[in-house]
Amino acid sequence: MDHGTDNVMLPEETPELKALYEGFEKESIIPLWTQLGDLMPVHPKSKAVPHVWKWSKLNALAEKSGDLIPVGRGGERRALGLANPGLAPNAYISPTLWAAIQHLGPRETAPEHRHAQNAFRFVVEGDGVWTVVNGDPVRMSRGDLLLTPGWHFHGHHNDTDHTMTWIDGLDIPFSQQNDVGFFEFGSDRVTDYATPNFSRGERLWCHPGLRPLSGLQDTVNSPIGAYRWEFTDRALTEQLLLEDEGHPATVEQGHAAIRYSNPTTGGDVMPTIRCEFHRLRAGTETPMRREVGSTVFQVFDGEGAVVLNGETHKLDKGDMFVIPSWIPWSLQAESQFDLFRFSDAPIMERLGFMRTLVEGA
Amino acid sequence: MDHGTDNVMLPEETPELKALYEGFEKESIIPLWTQLGDLMPVHPKSKAVPHVWKWSKLNALAEKSGDLIPVGRGGERRALGLANPGLAPNAYISPTLWAAIQHLGPRETAPEHRHAQNAFRFVVEGDGVWTVVNGDPVRMSRGDLLLTPGWHFHGHHNDTDHTMTWIDGLDIPFSQQNDVGFFEFGSDRVTDYATPNFSRGERLWCHPGLRPLSGLQDTVNSPIGAYRWEFTDRALTEQLLLEDEGHPATVEQGHAAIRYSNPTTGGDVMPTIRCEFHRLRAGTETPMRREVGSTVFQVFDGEGAVVLNGETHKLDKGDMFVIPSWIPWSLQAESQFDLFRFSDAPIMERLGFMRTLVEGA
Amino acid sequence: MDHGTDNVMLPEETPELKALYEGFEKESIIPLWTQLGDLMPVHPKSKAVPHVWKWSKLNALAEKSGDLIPVGRGGERRALGLANPGLAPNAYISPTLWAAIQHLGPRETAPEHRHAQNAFRFVVEGDGVWTVVNGDPVRMSRGDLLLTPGWHFHGHHNDTDHTMTWIDGLDIPFSQQNDVGFFEFGSDRVTDYATPNFSRGERLWCHPGLRPLSGLQDTVNSPIGAYRWEFTDRALTEQLLLEDEGHPATVEQGHAAIRYSNPTTGGDVMPTIRCEFHRLRAGTETPMRREVGSTVFQVFDGEGAVVLNGETHKLDKGDMFVIPSWIPWSLQAESQFDLFRFSDAPIMERLGFMRTLVEGA
Amino acid sequence: MDHGTDNVMLPEETPELKALYEGFEKESIIPLWTQLGDLMPVHPKSKAVPHVWKWSKLNALAEKSGDLIPVGRGGERRALGLANPGLAPNAYISPTLWAAIQHLGPRETAPEHRHAQNAFRFVVEGDGVWTVVNGDPVRMSRGDLLLTPGWHFHGHHNDTDHTMTWIDGLDIPFSQQNDVGFFEFGSDRVTDYATPNFSRGERLWCHPGLRPLSGLQDTVNSPIGAYRWEFTDRALTEQLLLEDEGHPATVEQGHAAIRYSNPTTGGDVMPTIRCEFHRLRAGTETPMRREVGSTVFQVFDGEGAVVLNGETHKLDKGDMFVIPSWIPWSLQAESQFDLFRFSDAPIMERLGFMRTLVEGA
Repeated sequence: MDHGTDNVMLPEETPELKALYEGFEKESIIPLWTQLGDLMPVHPKSKAVPHVWKWSKLNALAEKSGDLIPVGRGGERRALGLANPGLAPNAYISPTLWAAIQHLGPRETAPEHRHAQNAFRFVVEGDGVWTVVNGDPVRMSRGDLLLTPGWHFHGHHNDTDHTMTWIDGLDIPFSQQNDVGFFEFGSDRVTDYATPNFSRGERLWCHPGLRPLSGLQDTVNSPIGAYRWEFTDRALTEQLLLEDEGHPATVEQGHAAIRYSNPTTGGDVMPTIRCEFHRLRAGTETPMRREVGSTVFQVFDGEGAVVLNGETHKLDKGDMFVIPSWIPWSLQAESQFDLFRFSDAPIMERLGFMRTLVEGA
Repeated sequence: MDHGTDNVMLPEETPELKALYEGFEKESIIPLWTQLGDLMPVHPKSKAVPHVWKWSKLNALAEKSGDLIPVGRGGERRALGLANPGLAPNAYISPTLWAAIQHLGPRETAPEHRHAQNAFRFVVEGDGVWTVVNGDPVRMSRGDLLLTPGWHFHGHHNDTDHTMTWIDGLDIPFSQQNDVGFFEFGSDRVTDYATPNFSRGERLWCHPGLRPLSGLQDTVNSPIGAYRWEFTDRALTEQLLLEDEGHPATVEQGHAAIRYSNPTTGGDVMPTIRCEFHRLRAGTETPMRREVGSTVFQVFDGEGAVVLNGETHKLDKGDMFVIPSWIPWSLQAESQFDLFRFSDAPIMERLGFMRTLVEGA
Repeated sequence: MDHGTDNVMLPEETPELKALYEGFEKESIIPLWTQLGDLMPVHPKSKAVPHVWKWSKLNALAEKSGDLIPVGRGGERRALGLANPGLAPNAYISPTLWAAIQHLGPRETAPEHRHAQNAFRFVVEGDGVWTVVNGDPVRMSRGDLLLTPGWHFHGHHNDTDHTMTWIDGLDIPFSQQNDVGFFEFGSDRVTDYATPNFSRGERLWCHPGLRPLSGLQDTVNSPIGAYRWEFTDRALTEQLLLEDEGHPATVEQGHAAIRYSNPTTGGDVMPTIRCEFHRLRAGTETPMRREVGSTVFQVFDGEGAVVLNGETHKLDKGDMFVIPSWIPWSLQAESQFDLFRFSDAPIMERLGFMRTLVEGA
Repeated sequence: MDHGTDNVMLPEETPELKALYEGFEKESIIPLWTQLGDLMPVHPKSKAVPHVWKWSKLNALAEKSGDLIPVGRGGERRALGLANPGLAPNAYISPTLWAAIQHLGPRETAPEHRHAQNAFRFVVEGDGVWTVVNGDPVRMSRGDLLLTPGWHFHGHHNDTDHTMTWIDGLDIPFSQQNDVGFFEFGSDRVTDYATPNFSRGERLWCHPGLRPLSGLQDTVNSPIGAYRWEFTDRALTEQLLLEDEGHPATVEQGHAAIRYSNPTTGGDVMPTIRCEFHRLRAGTETPMRREVGSTVFQVFDGEGAVVLNGETHKLDKGDMFVIPSWIPWSLQAESQFDLFRFSDAPIMERLGFMRTLVEGA
């Protein structure tokens, strides 16, 4: 074991001891002392590994899938799961999170279903698809974050003659590991093919600090179906301008960031997934940081790098990477550098497991 | 007493009884049985009365005050308190709330101070004044709600050559009655005479559902210093459009409404004062309603009436009225009818006293 | 005004100014600048005064009332309200709180009623009365705290041939001032004349840290109808023993104290009233302290004194005193000194007004 | 897949398709459509299986381990993990929970350590061991529940000449799966060999509804180190008596139950583990029930059976069984039947995944 001491509880094997261990096996028992080091490490040591996926590769494979694989009932989605090499043979990007590239061809429909798993979509490029969530059609455009919380019916349709690709994030690994999943099919088509600019959820809820009197009950999930790029961009721009003017606004010097939140509580958008957007000024380098829980980034714009466990990875638009629990990481911005982030931090915080270690802090 | 029974505890007066009552007085004692009916009414029976103030009169008096009364240290504000006739000689609009018309002449400054009392301003007409809250200059324009929560320094200055008038709402009566007030003078001038279109608080916080990572601590008061008319109007417009399209959005048929909220919690903007804005379609009449606690309305636009305790009062732009606890009321809209509302409902809800009775519900 | 400056807003009287002030009066308006100092003091300056009531006097008057005043419908209770001299002619011990001595003769019944006001009883001496709360008979004995939260039916009956006297605490002044009161008569007798040692509420809830599965819904009020002296005494005894053994347990050196709490939330027993019990070792003197809100103490046992606003008052068993908001106070114990305390602190904390200043801290 | 439909997204294999799948593999990508049925089941289908362990067997193996295996640094504990046959080769009783029999010989000490994982002990028989939690010695006796929440130092020592055996419950599988574990060695001995009847935590906190003024900060974990059998037994006894008397008290007819709770919040004792105790009258049979999440029972006294997924298992004192997520179960009592229960329900509730289905409800 790696606890820095010898294990005094492993005596020499004798016939009696052998009989004891056979007794254990027969009775479905395993002694703690033979495996403590793995069960209770000094600090989190994930089987998941830090990994970077290049958008150029992902996108090409998605396009190719569009040519070869029909979308429809049973498989449900033309989604390519980013499979952490440390978690093979599962298609898990981390022990808790699922991340995938989803692709929809011209005029295609991904049929409706619902599941206990929480999901979101983020659009790094393209437009023309509407996702229909509990009957409310939501436009998908570059920079938008779309929510489909647990047990909400949802399907997608492409209203154009070009393809579209985006990323999906879900808590599938957590749900599967903890046996919480339910699934139900809905309509084979989407229930509403309208293509409004703004969903009904947005029209009710996207007015800063204003709450409809028809919506005074707090909800576990955010009632905002789409967080538009226009607002995110403006918020980040203002933070950097305020920093320029000498006022506190950014999270660190040169580092603007927002967390997407549930307006009924001020908390995270869904109970298991946190979503954020980060913007670094050119030249900014964030302090090395370790956190409990896993997180995924996608580069939205600009150029830079991430240092993951001491190794530097250059990053371009669309590139995605995963940081497992307690792996040290730092971001470096060559140009202005925009990144979308999601993580399992709400799980860690709600269950009292969150810890953070920032170098030099 | 009004409890519908006789009080069996009031025996005929005898010398012994007289001596007992004298003993009470000497020892600072008052028997419950002589006054129960007043102390414990069958339902709330406020000393405050329903009352309507006409904007035309208020405004004229405010203008006249501007001519005759200087603004400055000691008196602090050129504010005219709406004094509920039932609460004389106090300048209280209700047992918990203060409402006043405040007036600032061309180029005048109302000096900075702070107090434990929570305050807001609402602008029914005019512009040109900036309120400076903890050093952050906030523009005041028609339709805006401005917050100055407890113990925030604030002063006002008029950057124009015309006068400006707005309303103030505070919890002064509650604070005075319950002995919670603290007060401190600040600068005799405002600390920043800049006149930006948007305050720093708005630039950080007025992006729907987006929370700055530099502001993850929940706060008792909303960090939004100004709720702009543009957003309020849009939110109400969308509710009525959604209703037209057949979707749930309004609080009642023909009645759109928003509550101003604290984005860090989803709750009220301040711990003692609730602020809302209501829009009725022409022809809408709300059901007769009784609520625990007191509320004040100001007509923002349109024409209509309020029925207060059975009496109908015609209302024009700027008119204000108060509804004491448990007084039945209903609104009637002749044209599209816009009203700003504030109340002490957060007190009632946090202390478990809220009750509502809606006719026909 | 007492703000330490002159009020520059009080110009010399002119005919025009006089006309303006007449206009104010006609329109139910009062200018802020004429009364700011009273409305917004530098710190809380209560009309209520610190005051001590001697138990010997209170008790004698209660006994005498028992001889002369019948108890029954209409007056409802033979209760003597402690009337703060600064709040005459009201029978309020403070701006928020009501405190009274209640007396019940042999075999008497105080009839059932309910009200929105929250109430408790505390027993400084005697026994033999049961209070019946929503049909559950609760024994009253020396040292017990009994709750009758808002809108719970309750009556009392004396099952013995001797008289009994106890204190009542309610939020009557707060309720009356803020117009939140409702009242309803119940049975003219109590609904259950059984005299069990323990109420059903205690039998379900008085097991430390154990929650019945039939009671998993959180409640605004504590479900514990009686907090028994036996437990309070043991808790305080243990705190002092732990202090003797060198462990942290007391709130200050020589000062043990418990707060009565709602086991469903860990919070106060009722939304407006905090109840505590304090025990000082002989010789202990607490630091001078100021708090927002008002509080009442009753001496339960031992001898000592309270310093109220600089004046020392000797105290004997049963004596009661009130400390208005922001008045400095300190307790001094000659012998071991036991005191019951109640206050309006939950109001102050829930509404964000609490402040405390401890000398030397 | 088992979704009741065919998967239209699995076209015939072509060279092009083969190349696509090779591309996926090279880029660490796995398509969703090849595995949706496993990832997103119609309802939870745990790999864990229902299983019963007989106490007679467990106890004999524990005794034998005591003879052959020393206890000490490295292995840390002589603990036998109950390994769910469906989760081999892991020693997990469920996907989230760890359950073990721990054994300590005469005069032995299990050294101190701490870990992020939350732990408790429950004593089905015996006495004589003290567990020392953050320096506070806690007696272990039959029927007691002992807490050692995350990151609290703890060790055990046997103060007698006889052996002792108890059960441990932890969130080790959850912690390992989600990479949240930290571990640190403490003293090789326990830091305090005193053997008091009651721990300091109990002396401060085990007074029903009373909170020390020195402990007003809410804590994530219960401050009560030991929930004594005496209180649990009395609470259950009272519930059945109240039921006999015709009052609501039990959770179902003939079924008394308590939840161990954190007195600072009223919530669960630790953020990931719920602990309860159930008592069934002879002849009682609980309705068939399915719940999200996994749970473990140990028979404390009496005889009865559990129906797990349609199969009936006879149960004797000390027997343990696990119920994986969504497996239907019912308890049957031959005699009065006492059972200790723990589960991962706080995880399910805090993350919004809890669902319950009760037959006939």
